[in-house]
Amino acid sequence: MKTSKEAARWLLDRDNFLILTHRSPDGDTTGCAIALCLGLRSLGKTAWIWANPQFTPRYAPRLAGLTSPAVNLEATIIAVDMASETLLPMGGEAFAGKAQLCLDHHPSNTHYAADTLVQPECGGCGELIWDLLEDLGVTITRDMAEALYIAVSTDTGCFRFANTTARTFRTAAKAVDHGAVIAPINRELFEIKTKSRLELEARLISHMEYYENGKVALCCLPQAWVRELGLSEDDLDSIAGFPRTIAGVDVSVVIRDKEPGKAKLSVRTAQGYNASQYCQHLGGGGHAAAAGAAVAGTLEDGKNAILKVLREEQVISD
Amino acid sequence: MKTSKEAARWLLDRDNFLILTHRSPDGDTTGCAIALCLGLRSLGKTAWIWANPQFTPRYAPRLAGLTSPAVNLEATIIAVDMASETLLPMGGEAFAGKAQLCLDHHPSNTHYAADTLVQPECGGCGELIWDLLEDLGVTITRDMAEALYIAVSTDTGCFRFANTTARTFRTAAKAVDHGAVIAPINRELFEIKTKSRLELEARLISHMEYYENGKVALCCLPQAWVRELGLSEDDLDSIAGFPRTIAGVDVSVVIRDKEPGKAKLSVRTAQGYNASQYCQHLGGGGHAAAAGAAVAGTLEDGKNAILKVLREEQVISD
Repeated sequence: MKTSKEAARWLLDRDNFLILTHRSPDGDTTGCAIALCLGLRSLGKTAWIWANPQFTPRYAPRLAGLTSPAVNLEATIIAVDMASETLLPMGGEAFAGKAQLCLDHHPSNTHYAADTLVQPECGGCGELIWDLLEDLGVTITRDMAEALYIAVSTDTGCFRFANTTARTFRTAAKAVDHGAVIAPINRELFEIKTKSRLELEARLISHMEYYENGKVALCCLPQAWVRELGLSEDDLDSIAGFPRTIAGVDVSVVIRDKEPGKAKLSVRTAQGYNASQYCQHLGGGGHAAAAGAAVAGTLEDGKNAILKVLREEQVISD
Repeated sequence: MKTSKEAARWLLDRDNFLILTHRSPDGDTTGCAIALCLGLRSLGKTAWIWANPQFTPRYAPRLAGLTSPAVNLEATIIAVDMASETLLPMGGEAFAGKAQLCLDHHPSNTHYAADTLVQPECGGCGELIWDLLEDLGVTITRDMAEALYIAVSTDTGCFRFANTTARTFRTAAKAVDHGAVIAPINRELFEIKTKSRLELEARLISHMEYYENGKVALCCLPQAWVRELGLSEDDLDSIAGFPRTIAGVDVSVVIRDKEPGKAKLSVRTAQGYNASQYCQHLGGGGHAAAAGAAVAGTLEDGKNAILKVLREEQVISD
């Protein structure tokens, strides 16, 4: 499938939709699912979002009335913002091989669905869904506009990241034109932090280890702190990127021991470095700017493993 | 003067421009001045930005070759983003009564200039300058686009604040279309913090005082910390808004003792509260959401003064 218009025709010819979001659902996959579900319903179609068990409280009010827990394999199954079937949510494994359409913006999409529309030039997948709703002839409501505003703003870090394009800004402009009230959304998503999160950041700052004159920053985030500070998953949102917000830090590593006996590493890098390459040494992978790996052992073992790799890769000199 | 087209005609009829920015120059006033200066020069005009002594190092590379220290009262003097003459920069007092044109977006503009174009519907004054450059027939370059991107993005807190409109997003989209490379700008302005700033935030968190179940947050920022941590003015950018980033905080107060014997209060409030009203009790003022006042005495005196006001105003119950 090559164009949004073809996808629109495909959807108009069908009914009884079930929309899948990806594992650890973020604002993009969730916002896209909400807008698409509302859009299809506005055309008189039956549409549900499969109740991803990992949906956090953040978007619960917007998902109310739209989700269904039934693993209905007879439905017209559509995946949004999901690059591969390895990203099927827990409990949704039975959907493997069943997606009939995938709407996505990841260049790495594995084309696991029977048909796929991928637009890698989109900052957020929400840009693609906006155009699709227009091609479907949907009258875009405030709820749809806000869902797609959430999609594009979260996936671009509130228009800060390098994936932000003129189209991203134009989608946001159209969302405002269609009634999206963005200031409270922005405040919730990009401005306020809980006291627990701020306390965590303060601890991370005081425990941060620097190498190569501050170009490399590394810190451990013990699960004990998560319990102690009562941190939720929403509180831990994008914590892996936190050390990269320190001036001068080009390579950052956050190590967590969420599962006992396993150290999970998240690596973030500036241009000219390759997080994915470093993580591949440890059996992991990802993108050039953001990648991950897991190492058997303690936080300390994880730290020693990645420091060894960074020395081998001459990111840290001996 | 009512329209951008009238302002364009006015500028085309004149030459020898000197552009004024406001006291404590921010990204909006600075970005507008840069883009306007470059735009006028591209039309063959002579144009300079008066070298505001408060320009910080942040925009120095973009201002290079554009500034003049001469208080030239014979020039065609234009003020950008300056609502009143009380905002004339230090050392620029002689410009009082001399501005021939003011281009602004503040509804409170006092019309001190001989002629004024005010568009209060603009999120950033940069939106107005963008349209003006188009009306002037300027070919917008990457440097102009980036300056105006800085203007609109900084004045809307990277599109987060309530003043962000569809036009703000469309100006940003046009900036990208005209070659603005925004990711490094965003990283510098909205993402990275120096270690000193992060250390300061950690201290503020641990010294924060809460009232009314966390709805009111108050902290002092002793000048001794500024010296100790080596904080620059850029590091202290928008620190007054910091406590309002804590979840649940509707009213925040930051107290500084920059001048000995004087406690300077910055109050920030959510909708339904009135920072200006509270500060008026102490001889200060401002906007409903952001206001300030100064009290003779120590940080502790400042704290007691504002707490008394907040009790009188029933923001804090006895």
